[in-house]
Amino acid sequence: MEKFKVTFYPDNKTIEVEKGKTILSAAISAGVYINSSCGGEGVCGRCKVILKKGTVLSQPTGRLSLEERRHNIYLACLATIQSDLEVEIPEESRLIFEKLSPEELGLRLKGLYAEVEEVESSMSILENVFIHSPLATKLYLELPPPDLNDKISDLERLYREIRKRHQIPIMQTGLANIRRLGEVLRSSNWKVTVTLGKRNGTVEVVLIEPGNTSKRNYGFAFDIGTTTIYGQLIDLNTKRILSTKVTYNKQAVFGPDVITRIIYAQEEDGLEKLHHAVVDVMNEMIQECIREHSIDLNDVSCVLCAGNTTMIHLLLKIDPSYIRREPYVPTANFVPTIRAAEAGIKINPRGLLSCIPGVSSYVGGDTVAGVLSCGIEREKDLSLLIDIGTNGEVVLGNRDFLISCAASAGPAFEGSGVSCGMRASSGAIQKVKVNPLNYEVKFSTIGDTKPKGICGSGYIDIIAEMLKAKIIDKAGKIILKDHFRIRDSDYGKEFVIAFGNSTLSGQDIIINESDIENIKRAKAAIFAGVSILIRHMGFDFEDIKKIFIAGGFGNYLDIENAKLIGLLPDLENTRYIFVGNSSLAGARQVLLSYEAMKKAGELASKITYFELSVEPSYMEEYMAALFFPHTDSLRFPNIKI
Amino acid sequence: MEKFKVTFYPDNKTIEVEKGKTILSAAISAGVYINSSCGGEGVCGRCKVILKKGTVLSQPTGRLSLEERRHNIYLACLATIQSDLEVEIPEESRLIFEKLSPEELGLRLKGLYAEVEEVESSMSILENVFIHSPLATKLYLELPPPDLNDKISDLERLYREIRKRHQIPIMQTGLANIRRLGEVLRSSNWKVTVTLGKRNGTVEVVLIEPGNTSKRNYGFAFDIGTTTIYGQLIDLNTKRILSTKVTYNKQAVFGPDVITRIIYAQEEDGLEKLHHAVVDVMNEMIQECIREHSIDLNDVSCVLCAGNTTMIHLLLKIDPSYIRREPYVPTANFVPTIRAAEAGIKINPRGLLSCIPGVSSYVGGDTVAGVLSCGIEREKDLSLLIDIGTNGEVVLGNRDFLISCAASAGPAFEGSGVSCGMRASSGAIQKVKVNPLNYEVKFSTIGDTKPKGICGSGYIDIIAEMLKAKIIDKAGKIILKDHFRIRDSDYGKEFVIAFGNSTLSGQDIIINESDIENIKRAKAAIFAGVSILIRHMGFDFEDIKKIFIAGGFGNYLDIENAKLIGLLPDLENTRYIFVGNSSLAGARQVLLSYEAMKKAGELASKITYFELSVEPSYMEEYMAALFFPHTDSLRFPNIKI
Repeated sequence: MEKFKVTFYPDNKTIEVEKGKTILSAAISAGVYINSSCGGEGVCGRCKVILKKGTVLSQPTGRLSLEERRHNIYLACLATIQSDLEVEIPEESRLIFEKLSPEELGLRLKGLYAEVEEVESSMSILENVFIHSPLATKLYLELPPPDLNDKISDLERLYREIRKRHQIPIMQTGLANIRRLGEVLRSSNWKVTVTLGKRNGTVEVVLIEPGNTSKRNYGFAFDIGTTTIYGQLIDLNTKRILSTKVTYNKQAVFGPDVITRIIYAQEEDGLEKLHHAVVDVMNEMIQECIREHSIDLNDVSCVLCAGNTTMIHLLLKIDPSYIRREPYVPTANFVPTIRAAEAGIKINPRGLLSCIPGVSSYVGGDTVAGVLSCGIEREKDLSLLIDIGTNGEVVLGNRDFLISCAASAGPAFEGSGVSCGMRASSGAIQKVKVNPLNYEVKFSTIGDTKPKGICGSGYIDIIAEMLKAKIIDKAGKIILKDHFRIRDSDYGKEFVIAFGNSTLSGQDIIINESDIENIKRAKAAIFAGVSILIRHMGFDFEDIKKIFIAGGFGNYLDIENAKLIGLLPDLENTRYIFVGNSSLAGARQVLLSYEAMKKAGELASKITYFELSVEPSYMEEYMAALFFPHTDSLRFPNIKI
Repeated sequence: MEKFKVTFYPDNKTIEVEKGKTILSAAISAGVYINSSCGGEGVCGRCKVILKKGTVLSQPTGRLSLEERRHNIYLACLATIQSDLEVEIPEESRLIFEKLSPEELGLRLKGLYAEVEEVESSMSILENVFIHSPLATKLYLELPPPDLNDKISDLERLYREIRKRHQIPIMQTGLANIRRLGEVLRSSNWKVTVTLGKRNGTVEVVLIEPGNTSKRNYGFAFDIGTTTIYGQLIDLNTKRILSTKVTYNKQAVFGPDVITRIIYAQEEDGLEKLHHAVVDVMNEMIQECIREHSIDLNDVSCVLCAGNTTMIHLLLKIDPSYIRREPYVPTANFVPTIRAAEAGIKINPRGLLSCIPGVSSYVGGDTVAGVLSCGIEREKDLSLLIDIGTNGEVVLGNRDFLISCAASAGPAFEGSGVSCGMRASSGAIQKVKVNPLNYEVKFSTIGDTKPKGICGSGYIDIIAEMLKAKIIDKAGKIILKDHFRIRDSDYGKEFVIAFGNSTLSGQDIIINESDIENIKRAKAAIFAGVSILIRHMGFDFEDIKKIFIAGGFGNYLDIENAKLIGLLPDLENTRYIFVGNSSLAGARQVLLSYEAMKKAGELASKITYFELSVEPSYMEEYMAALFFPHTDSLRFPNIKI
């Protein structure tokens, strides 16, 4: 097979690839990150690159203007390599892994519910519900040295001393620690610190260190999202959150959602690359956190991860392919606690990594963590948890039962698959008002910068405002005519939110009828899921006393507008509690409490999974919801547009 | 530091070493095996080598004749390297690792007590005392494939099926197996064989294989002795012994006993070399056994080892140095079950290795295995187990109590440290008769070959016969005069057993007063240990109903002669049961039964260790026993010499 060299700028990385491969696949192989939210299908038009030298072949695409074509701009996913190439990746096509502060992302990470004070205080009660007993505990021991009257071996001496303090039926120690034991005990004059890790129903002596290091015991809680990864450094002794980091999941380059990544995992080295992408991000976050706090990596003894089922499979390098094949069965919902090093996570080489168990292929440990942290299973009253993401997970229940479903909403609320969509990060339009008289648009962006694009909460506001201003009708068609903000496009009519002279890229930020359609489908999928689940259990919306809304909306979500577009049920605002990242909160609880870990296991077993795709009425319900707010206006009695 | 090249013949191995090192240490580094039973102290005179080229410096030694010195023969342990050398190792100095059949070693390996038929049948009862439940079991499963009504994950599906058959509270599976699980289950059409291993109070899914491989499940039982290693290939399904191998422990090159090896372990790479020496031997035995029976290495799922505490430390590469430092505490008596590969043992890469727990530094898992296989702890009557080796282990007890001690006898009974001593293998003089009238000597050798040397049972016979023929007195002095078999030597008078014209090497086989002294000390140490232990518990010899004699004596030990020299108490012969290798029998039982494994653990905890070295009367008792049979003839009322 003929091979060619492709050099990417500004990265200045060169790779040799076979003739006929796409520029996108060459970039992936070279470790160059190009934006692509459709998974390389030629649909999203985000992977524009400039060909500086060489020849490619490309299918025609409406995603490139004549002007762009004239300037040798191609879609990397469609252009196949026919010679040695030099390729420039313009800034807007680059997937930049910004390190964003929680403030920039507007995240309420300290507490579970930051805005409402009385709920805040109930939150701290929640955090204290579980007995403090972290995944790994350090214990300082002063052993009686052996003498002729007390000659038990070093290992049994250690066990005896530990068991004076804790009742541990099954205790284990790896050979590596036993090999060092005699020397460590004697060089430390029989004063050592043991790290005890909870491992699959047993307790492992993870580490044996000379002297008293018990004050230095740290762990990480991770929420591994399809799009975003949150990491928190926790002092396991004091339960204090020392640092919170958030960044993109580098896997995004291989596909925007779990399905495209599962497909990519089947390619040669695909699983390996996806695995490394997530592990690299986590290791970078760990490194950054410990550097900031001058913590020794060896004092990080454990990591607790919450993620959807696919993310956990990829983290552990377990083939995820069966997740997307009927009957949609993952390899494992409950994965054993392993040594973090086995997954490539760099903490203490003998440190542990545990994952919150999942319910099914599409309701993962992140949802279980969410249920745990919201405390739904402790409530007498009926509660609902809606995690709005690419995969919209819904859990309904109380202390008697818990049932879940997953509505495949698509990535629109996470800013993918919509023309000017972006994640809830710096520069995202998150809040919008439209003057119904002159159609003037006012908005605020995350970080108060010039606008770069629109995030999920921005889209909810825009559509609600457009409805109220009668710019669109209830079907989502643009009905306003003859206004300078209204234009025709390849994707139906479009409405300009911000003109190029005020935006970061200099290009207009718009919403078109195709975008509105995407958002409508996303909200219909979630609403239909919620409706079906509630009806399936024989309840009405009115029966739900608390609705927890989770998701990557930053710190803002206008509940009123979410109801207005028909995303959320038409109930009083006081029933809604916006919890932000409930998965991370749950992961932290499990990291800090073995009781919470056991509870998470119970929840994963207890939560029933309801498969929407085999429920005949789901499609009906979905079709009925393809309207703002709904075809059946009686379902939204308080919404007047 | 100046360095020189040393080439060894006939091995034709060259190594570069620092000036001033001994030839013996160069040989060890080069992996050339030279005989040395004193551990390189210049005492045993076995490491004779011929200097072909180059210069050495050597201390004077009585171990070399003028003739030998004239022919450039040196002791490898005393000759220090001063230039590049070429060294020839003559055959008699080579440590040859013969693979001996059990017949050649005269070993009764099939049963525990081969000679006495009624005991043989009680033996098979003993073997069946424990429920058949091997360290690793294979289980063939036909799983119901998942469908939309039964969507639990692959791992939970597997666990569910296993738990239908066995009650397993804690089940574990390693990440490597989980990574392969989805593929294995589907490619095998949901028909798989799992290997379940007992691991430290939990059950591990060791292997998951497609199809039904449950018929093919093999394990090895090993007795790792200081001198000799026994290995048995066992069909874990049928409990059948398929093969028994026995060979030398290659560690012998680093020192004849545990103490010299512990000292050697402190040298650079010493522990590493000792570890590899034993592991290499075990791997060779495994390879040979599976080749003979056309068994796939992957079908060998576990290994069970019994050995003294030092041997187990070296097998697992745990520093043994604290064993010989007061207060003589090992790093671990109970070592966890590990993956065999962690210790370098090559069976199925995920197969398990378990060791029988020991009691103390000098009463190890081999003794526990012996007690288990003799069934002492099930008897109402008082029994005694005496394992005669370099370290003489003694266990006294019944179903109510068990107490042990270790008498450091030295290696004389194993053929080391005595001029013509050798192990109980082909060519060893094992049975001797001396005509009291003309002092003619008749003997038989193992394998009926020309004599090469004298093994333990041979020495017992020789001394007893010399006593009866009044060649020696009760102190062990040679009192016969003016006979062609009696000569003077550097080591007192000597008595010729076989003249060079009838021996394998052409050299005379003799016993001298120094040898007799060594044997006397060895028997005194063991007898004193036995006496002290019995007295310590308030018993008399007469109270002991059964005495089990174990040790590397081949298939022959003359109990009458052993009593006559004062090695064994003066009790009726019917109380004695010669059990041969009871450690291997115990290892096999533990390999085949989890119940036996638990029992071994209980025994190791239950057996009290009595430290002879701190018992004031031990030295007295030992001194009193330095006489044939004893200074106090009332202790041996039936012995008339």
